Amino acid sequence: MSTAATPQQPTPERIFDAINAYQQTESVKAAIELEIFTAIGEGSTTAATIAKRAKASERGVRTLCDFLTIHGFLTKDGEQYGLAPDAAVFLNKTSPAYIGGAIGFLLTPRVREANARTTDAVRQGGSALGEGNMVPDNPDWVKFAEAMMPLMMMPAQIMASELRKGGEAKKVLDIAAGHGVYGIFVAKQNPAAQIYACDWKDVLAVAERNAQKMGVGDRHHPIPGSAFDVDFGGGYDLALVTNFLHHFNPAVCTAFMKKVHASLVPGGRAAIAEIVPNPDRVSPPMQAAFSMMMLTTTPEGDAYTFAEIEKMSKDAGFSRVEMAETPLGLDSMIVAYR
Amino acid sequence: MSTAATPQQPTPERIFDAINAYQQTESVKAAIELEIFTAIGEGSTTAATIAKRAKASERGVRTLCDFLTIHGFLTKDGEQYGLAPDAAVFLNKTSPAYIGGAIGFLLTPRVREANARTTDAVRQGGSALGEGNMVPDNPDWVKFAEAMMPLMMMPAQIMASELRKGGEAKKVLDIAAGHGVYGIFVAKQNPAAQIYACDWKDVLAVAERNAQKMGVGDRHHPIPGSAFDVDFGGGYDLALVTNFLHHFNPAVCTAFMKKVHASLVPGGRAAIAEIVPNPDRVSPPMQAAFSMMMLTTTPEGDAYTFAEIEKMSKDAGFSRVEMAETPLGLDSMIVAYR
Repeated sequence: MSTAATPQQPTPERIFDAINAYQQTESVKAAIELEIFTAIGEGSTTAATIAKRAKASERGVRTLCDFLTIHGFLTKDGEQYGLAPDAAVFLNKTSPAYIGGAIGFLLTPRVREANARTTDAVRQGGSALGEGNMVPDNPDWVKFAEAMMPLMMMPAQIMASELRKGGEAKKVLDIAAGHGVYGIFVAKQNPAAQIYACDWKDVLAVAERNAQKMGVGDRHHPIPGSAFDVDFGGGYDLALVTNFLHHFNPAVCTAFMKKVHASLVPGGRAAIAEIVPNPDRVSPPMQAAFSMMMLTTTPEGDAYTFAEIEKMSKDAGFSRVEMAETPLGLDSMIVAYR
Repeated sequence: MSTAATPQQPTPERIFDAINAYQQTESVKAAIELEIFTAIGEGSTTAATIAKRAKASERGVRTLCDFLTIHGFLTKDGEQYGLAPDAAVFLNKTSPAYIGGAIGFLLTPRVREANARTTDAVRQGGSALGEGNMVPDNPDWVKFAEAMMPLMMMPAQIMASELRKGGEAKKVLDIAAGHGVYGIFVAKQNPAAQIYACDWKDVLAVAERNAQKMGVGDRHHPIPGSAFDVDFGGGYDLALVTNFLHHFNPAVCTAFMKKVHASLVPGGRAAIAEIVPNPDRVSPPMQAAFSMMMLTTTPEGDAYTFAEIEKMSKDAGFSRVEMAETPLGLDSMIVAYR
């Protein structure tokens, strides 16, 4: 009995941690909504002063800040709270890299409901909500485009730089452009490039606005509609297929890559940004875990390995498929050559 | 730019991990509901064979099992899944220490809803659902009594052994008895002890059943009703106050400890089992994090430090208050002497 608490023995602690893990979700969400990180960044560092700024109870703020300290987002020294480095960069509203808006997309009632029905999703092998977030003109994608842009700035710059090494792009297709920054950075690094951005009409408005702001509005052209149905035209030397394939099954991806292939000039490149797990499908942890989000929120999507993306691309007619060495944050870049 | 992925730099990964942490909750819940751990324990170790036993899709099971592997509850070797030690002991239904039933109490719609309103709880300094789970005869406590019993067997045995060292108990008050095992193990280790167990009537039925099963039914007596309102009687040499105080504010706890004090003979002991954080309130992590659950689910409860419990007890008239060295799992034992 006396060995019950020794670390070598199995303990239920990690199981309870996982069962109660949703409290992390709720607490980080609450802290973003109440601007706790911003308050601390501004110098309100005690429960009393943070509570005053947040118009919240001191007791509630103390409990929340302690919880955030336990999970590594704040520091605590006596009664003083401080921002951990990640929180200072990404959760303080005055930081240029603020990503707090991401809860607006990641935690929509639809996504939460889809995940609350994980048991059903496992039973049927796809989202319990049927079409999941794949319905046409889903307003969640507008939220996504707006919320994710700050986070995508750096990966988009890295992607554009890497692609520039392979030659100057002139006519560029930006599929499921979203916030538009992938195409926008290609435009910035390729002065003659014309960008043709495809997405739902309301989403493209976000991309257009960003293109204007970032000084490439005159070289940014909309193709509104479903990437499966619209006419891309042809003559592209570069197609950007960013965070798109994971929403669909391999057969649909292959058929789609055929359409991309047909839009490219000989020697043209398709640059695929995807969350790519290793062949074991359980590493790296964040990339591999993304498969669960696709199971719960899409009918047939998945996080695909390099071998799977290579097969889809080759089956679609691409001659050579290469993984770029530099990761784009959570994404990897895979280049398929026509 | 090229240093963006180096570990020294702040990254948003841990923030996204926390925002998506609810997926761990949903996945462990789904795996318990689908008896995935039990299936693997029985020898169904591939996605195909687990899926067959679970009447689920192979694709869904593969994704779920990969997710559980990422989070350390399963192992994966090629296509073969195995149980990690914690999962083998606590999540396989055929294990005597199975705790999967705990989701029935920990993840009730009411608890989930209370936590979904964490922002409101922080604003008002208590559960957004008002009385939270403190309403009389809340059926959740019956679920709790049934679900938590396997997990409480070992802490209850440790507690009874520790208390036995301080002398034989004869008349024992078991407050908020729940599953009853704290009092039952005291009865087993003190052959002359008579146990008077107080809880809501429907909960006491669970405790009575367990007392019968464990052979001490004839020395186990019910006191149905609210621990605040019922007459305990007197002449007790031991009172068990297990996981009770954290539901209430310090003034209520102090008043309640006065009632306990009055029920004890001179020299009698109150044995308090509580989740006790350190004075910094941010360690140990699981104990300190419990404060958030009390904020969201009770009007005024909290995880109290030793100093706070000592003060409540002394203000209630106890002469000496000591922390026992041996932890009872997540709980600590504090003994207050009349």
